[in-house]
Amino acid sequence: MCEKLPMQNDGIVRLAKIQVNPDYLEEYMKYAVEVGTISLETEPGVLTMYAVSDKENPCNITILETYASQEAYKSHISSCHFQKYKQRTLHMVDSLLLDDVTPLNSNNKLKNYIQR
Amino acid sequence: MCEKLPMQNDGIVRLAKIQVNPDYLEEYMKYAVEVGTISLETEPGVLTMYAVSDKENPCNITILETYASQEAYKSHISSCHFQKYKQRTLHMVDSLLLDDVTPLNSNNKLKNYIQR
Repeated sequence: MCEKLPMQNDGIVRLAKIQVNPDYLEEYMKYAVEVGTISLETEPGVLTMYAVSDKENPCNITILETYASQEAYKSHISSCHFQKYKQRTLHMVDSLLLDDVTPLNSNNKLKNYIQR
Repeated sequence: MCEKLPMQNDGIVRLAKIQVNPDYLEEYMKYAVEVGTISLETEPGVLTMYAVSDKENPCNITILETYASQEAYKSHISSCHFQKYKQRTLHMVDSLLLDDVTPLNSNNKLKNYIQR
């Protein structure tokens, strides 16, 4: 895991809500796991990327994402690993909502990492 | 912060989705922050309790909750601090959905804590 940057005033906390086409769910999952792993392990400004799927409808994916700054977010979406994920999954995604959110308690902290 | 238990096979990962009555939002927030703080700091089986509100509609609250086991969850909902939160906010909550979820990557780990 790379060292992480501190959260800045222009940082982002977001719930990405993705509806995956059921025909592609298994394949989508592989790309999502790959991009999450590489982003967390190599990008200092990607602080959290925690993806879950509904037990009742596994095609409903929610990703808790936090970025240290707007710059960190721009760097993320221009990275090779994100562009690979985006291009290869475009046809698998039925809908995508990016809901920016505010933590209720600024002292409540998350440390997100990949266990090897 | 108390020491945390390891996640068990019968552990819970959940997105609690709460719609708060706008008349009570500020008051609700105080109870939600209180119960989250006490639960994280004192309950070994409450591994994650991270609450956010939508920027566009702050009455939409989402809480990422993980419990180490079913027993840890039962202990949580019978605790004094949870019962206080539940009873005092009942009339403030317009709707509550508990969506159990599955992490896409079992190696993707969260450590959640209160910074003092």
